[in-house]
Amino acid sequence: MPARPIITLTTDFGQGSAYVAEMKGAILSINRQVQLVDITHSVRPQEIREGAQVLAQATPTFPSDAIHVAVIDPGVGTNRDIVYAEFPWGRYICPDNGLLDRLASRAEATMMVTVTAERFFRHPVAPTFHGRDIMGPVAAHLSLGVDPAALGPSHATLKRLDWPGAIKLANRITGEIVSVDSFGNLVTNITREMLAGVPTDDSVAIRCDEHETRSIFTTYADQPPMTLVALIGSNDQLEIAIVDDSAKIMLGVDVGTPVEVSW
Amino acid sequence: MPARPIITLTTDFGQGSAYVAEMKGAILSINRQVQLVDITHSVRPQEIREGAQVLAQATPTFPSDAIHVAVIDPGVGTNRDIVYAEFPWGRYICPDNGLLDRLASRAEATMMVTVTAERFFRHPVAPTFHGRDIMGPVAAHLSLGVDPAALGPSHATLKRLDWPGAIKLANRITGEIVSVDSFGNLVTNITREMLAGVPTDDSVAIRCDEHETRSIFTTYADQPPMTLVALIGSNDQLEIAIVDDSAKIMLGVDVGTPVEVSW
Amino acid sequence: MPARPIITLTTDFGQGSAYVAEMKGAILSINRQVQLVDITHSVRPQEIREGAQVLAQATPTFPSDAIHVAVIDPGVGTNRDIVYAEFPWGRYICPDNGLLDRLASRAEATMMVTVTAERFFRHPVAPTFHGRDIMGPVAAHLSLGVDPAALGPSHATLKRLDWPGAIKLANRITGEIVSVDSFGNLVTNITREMLAGVPTDDSVAIRCDEHETRSIFTTYADQPPMTLVALIGSNDQLEIAIVDDSAKIMLGVDVGTPVEVSW
Repeated sequence: MPARPIITLTTDFGQGSAYVAEMKGAILSINRQVQLVDITHSVRPQEIREGAQVLAQATPTFPSDAIHVAVIDPGVGTNRDIVYAEFPWGRYICPDNGLLDRLASRAEATMMVTVTAERFFRHPVAPTFHGRDIMGPVAAHLSLGVDPAALGPSHATLKRLDWPGAIKLANRITGEIVSVDSFGNLVTNITREMLAGVPTDDSVAIRCDEHETRSIFTTYADQPPMTLVALIGSNDQLEIAIVDDSAKIMLGVDVGTPVEVSW
Repeated sequence: MPARPIITLTTDFGQGSAYVAEMKGAILSINRQVQLVDITHSVRPQEIREGAQVLAQATPTFPSDAIHVAVIDPGVGTNRDIVYAEFPWGRYICPDNGLLDRLASRAEATMMVTVTAERFFRHPVAPTFHGRDIMGPVAAHLSLGVDPAALGPSHATLKRLDWPGAIKLANRITGEIVSVDSFGNLVTNITREMLAGVPTDDSVAIRCDEHETRSIFTTYADQPPMTLVALIGSNDQLEIAIVDDSAKIMLGVDVGTPVEVSW
Repeated sequence: MPARPIITLTTDFGQGSAYVAEMKGAILSINRQVQLVDITHSVRPQEIREGAQVLAQATPTFPSDAIHVAVIDPGVGTNRDIVYAEFPWGRYICPDNGLLDRLASRAEATMMVTVTAERFFRHPVAPTFHGRDIMGPVAAHLSLGVDPAALGPSHATLKRLDWPGAIKLANRITGEIVSVDSFGNLVTNITREMLAGVPTDDSVAIRCDEHETRSIFTTYADQPPMTLVALIGSNDQLEIAIVDDSAKIMLGVDVGTPVEVSW
């Protein structure tokens, strides 16, 4: 059985949006053998930063020939580019508006093309829906084996975002909450890598807003229910959680709240 | 590789409903090669009109042999018919309660059957869940190549809905908002076709409730953020939007609000 | 065309969660031919009981070789077991924390294995995400034909839950509401089986909180709109509904409210 090509979709259209279904129809009209996977359609409208994080979190677990289409596109219909980019762990098609920023911070793209070849588009192209009429169809053609070099000219550089970076000093790391999951766990921009050499016993203090906990644990269940704990989560970022409850609600904090690790 | 048959699902069961999963299991038990696609499960409970719009918006982008199952079915268990209908752009199975109204306004069905052949049902048939026990299984059998004529007798006419139509006068079109997308853009029932010959420059005024804008633009980003704009959207209907914000929230309007174009 | 193996996913990660996408990527990296089906990701966080009900409702409609992965896992990273269990209607991989309770009450598992064979895991295994690193990958390997006996040693007994059972007396059954669907219909733990021999005409009274209705009907539409009705739903459990409206909202009741049938 030949391998089924994979196309994933990440948008801000909302779960259950008919726009998503329109994109899927457009893709399947070109290649119905495709394995379609929804990454999410719950990115807040036009929040490129959130889209960039989701792509960086979810797409690297896929086979490296998967094609990831991301449509968070406030500039649709303007002269922003649509880009095709290959990274060691996957292939991406999206507006060149910063959506690939978190991926580009991990590795150089090995190939980049500005998507201009109209023969791979769905016509007529609606000026307000390039997901359905350009990005989806182009992904479908790629899944049939079209050479990426045929999509258009070489693309010079990816648009990057200003990103709140955590900062490591001699005995302190300062960062912030960058996302909150469905359990209310607070994910920070402090990485496992930055925490190398930092103690994990109770000589380390983790402070979030005015709340403090000590030690960096391995898993939520290492401590009793309702305890505030810090641990390194499944994406190698420091998380702050309340065992069996929502840290977001209990602490009254959210994305952007400062977090400090000191020892 | 033989073409994989496509079955799509449109329901009012809610995203993540176990009822949807029951339907998928029933379908895959008959044909596991099927490409299943969720159109949406977010139609408001028993809102046939909304289901009819979603079907008309999302399904025509699919390959024309796709089978679209729609279960918004307040009359389940009564003597309403279940209908199989073929249109030039797709095949449909649903209660004959108006769900195909928006499609039927575009073209005549080329074939219609009242679904009665119990050998294609899942047994026992629950009187409250014909999606799982009749419509899904019938779609699965069709996807295996069953002749639609075997499903039952010829179906005479589709149930139609009274639909708020826009009206075009000498220098004015009056219509209304018929849906709102996840960005808060207001979609009206005034079509591109009706706007043929209407000026697009600032000699045209578009009024929604007590708010007015001039000109019909091509895309959202043609104007500065927070500007009220009118444009023809990706489904060839006039839309009213606020650049980079939600027109629904900013204008405090919703489905049913009158819209007038005058020139 | 060889049969495509089916893997379903049931989690409490939330619809549109990137965690779900990470699991799908991990599965497709091992077997990209898989037919992935979302049962639901809307189980309330860490509500094992709700997960157990969803599995019992939705999974038996699937082909019996489908592999159902359920990740409602408050004990992740502790010494709770991960179990593989075969039932006559399907194969399951989940934490042994009660998720299979409702299924185990219907039949004995025909095979049970404690999942320990690390060569089928994704490495490194994050202590907080066994869905992505253990359960998903193990399911993918099984879908490739791995012998379940290779997953680990035989598993002795499944963890069971204390479950509110309905009680049948001479002329009365007492139970409670165990779930509410998207229409606001109230599903009880009183089964079709318990109702065998109970009259369905107006000599039977069904009481929920302080509301009472008489007779057990066949379908919602047997009575006029806004009528309170009782009927046996599509999963063979007594339901209380308001025709064309939400019984949950109109009656102000919810999961846990007592229900009594008397005759």
